[in-house]
Amino acid sequence: MQPSEFPFLHRLRVRWAETDPQGIVFNGHYLTYFDVAITEYWRAVGLPYPGSLERFGLDLFVVKATVEYHAPAQYDDELEVGVRVGRIGNSSLQFVLGVFRAGEHLASGEVIYVAAHPQTRRPQPVPEAMRALLRSV
Amino acid sequence: MQPSEFPFLHRLRVRWAETDPQGIVFNGHYLTYFDVAITEYWRAVGLPYPGSLERFGLDLFVVKATVEYHAPAQYDDELEVGVRVGRIGNSSLQFVLGVFRAGEHLASGEVIYVAAHPQTRRPQPVPEAMRALLRSV
Amino acid sequence: MQPSEFPFLHRLRVRWAETDPQGIVFNGHYLTYFDVAITEYWRAVGLPYPGSLERFGLDLFVVKATVEYHAPAQYDDELEVGVRVGRIGNSSLQFVLGVFRAGEHLASGEVIYVAAHPQTRRPQPVPEAMRALLRSV
Amino acid sequence: MQPSEFPFLHRLRVRWAETDPQGIVFNGHYLTYFDVAITEYWRAVGLPYPGSLERFGLDLFVVKATVEYHAPAQYDDELEVGVRVGRIGNSSLQFVLGVFRAGEHLASGEVIYVAAHPQTRRPQPVPEAMRALLRSV
Repeated sequence: MQPSEFPFLHRLRVRWAETDPQGIVFNGHYLTYFDVAITEYWRAVGLPYPGSLERFGLDLFVVKATVEYHAPAQYDDELEVGVRVGRIGNSSLQFVLGVFRAGEHLASGEVIYVAAHPQTRRPQPVPEAMRALLRSV
Repeated sequence: MQPSEFPFLHRLRVRWAETDPQGIVFNGHYLTYFDVAITEYWRAVGLPYPGSLERFGLDLFVVKATVEYHAPAQYDDELEVGVRVGRIGNSSLQFVLGVFRAGEHLASGEVIYVAAHPQTRRPQPVPEAMRALLRSV
Repeated sequence: MQPSEFPFLHRLRVRWAETDPQGIVFNGHYLTYFDVAITEYWRAVGLPYPGSLERFGLDLFVVKATVEYHAPAQYDDELEVGVRVGRIGNSSLQFVLGVFRAGEHLASGEVIYVAAHPQTRRPQPVPEAMRALLRSV
Repeated sequence: MQPSEFPFLHRLRVRWAETDPQGIVFNGHYLTYFDVAITEYWRAVGLPYPGSLERFGLDLFVVKATVEYHAPAQYDDELEVGVRVGRIGNSSLQFVLGVFRAGEHLASGEVIYVAAHPQTRRPQPVPEAMRALLRSV
């Protein structure tokens, strides 16, 4: 996996509070990195979260997240988190992610959301307009 | 400072994700420990947060927090977090905290809340009934 | 999935700092819960992490983590995190996890570790003695 | 307090995982923001943490941290964290901090470190060269 496989890259720096006694980023924080990068992806397509989803009467709930760890990120590393939209199902959205340091592939993963009614949390179809925008980057 | 100076002690164990490359708990996590222990204090006085504060038409917002670090807590340490109510002003509540490991004093601090209207965030007097309960432990 | 499918359950309470504006636990914190529960599992088999792994000349590095979210955990919920050992490969260890609230199945997942040399991070075989202990709960 | 009172400002954006069910940043995360901004301050004076401190045979340990909360930061807010060096004692370093959103003063605080031997944690004098650099921004 390479940065060039992603239409969108978000850059962030590893914080001291995110590293553990092994000197590496605690495994759970990659999901925070994914979340931050996906937030920026939504902003990039013109649908900043959460306000613009409410226009569609929708909220997003994570139903599955996976991280594969290839090499550890360390304190103060500058990382690039690549985001691309994978499969868009009837009510589900898959984001595919990659984490890189100076081009080196450190981690990869996916986060799958379901579009749902904000209160009832009942799944709702992903609107056509949203599909088009998500593919626009 | 000793555990016996506190009417209420909450026990917790340091998590891996809370320790940093120095092998010690990151300084900010003590405020999480304080928050967890204060939550248990509210439960102990019969006012579990947040539901029971709503009965009073109130919410609590932190206005000041201080931590003094005497000796570092480490991964897997079992800690006791002591809580007592300090000064109760017209609309403010001070909690005094101490962190101990096997009786050794590791940290101390205070968290000051203001009682306020949940929506407007305007300060409200601390009700007499709440004062009495807060002193009841 | 039910709590009874797990030989080991660790109980914890959701912290305020772990919940988000949707009122639910942020998705990344489940990996912290998994980590805490797996730590307790190691303790239960008599191999408290990390000291006892060093006896074997090993450290553990996470290579893959997956979480599936079925229903959201909320602030102050008391959760049970079930842990069982899944597949043990030549140098890999799979833990299978489930998160429950009063028996209700909220989340499930797996965390796969590789046993490796603490400095070189080169994979090492999982020792027979460790395999036996891991299955002993 | 105004941004212009600080010789150094670090910009960051509030993450979803940092906000709580009140829709605001959890109080403890301000210490993470402070830590991130102080890290950038060290980099700005040419002493990136931690490597360059080791040149002086020193490490830094937090001995006191205070946060005052004036108005809440919310999800996705772009914040400026101002840093300036306050009092430098024989072995102690005080950083003064302010948090701003579009010029609005949200929070302020201080973090006091002690310079110490990395292993023994015995306090050491802050070297003259370090004092001069810390004042150079």
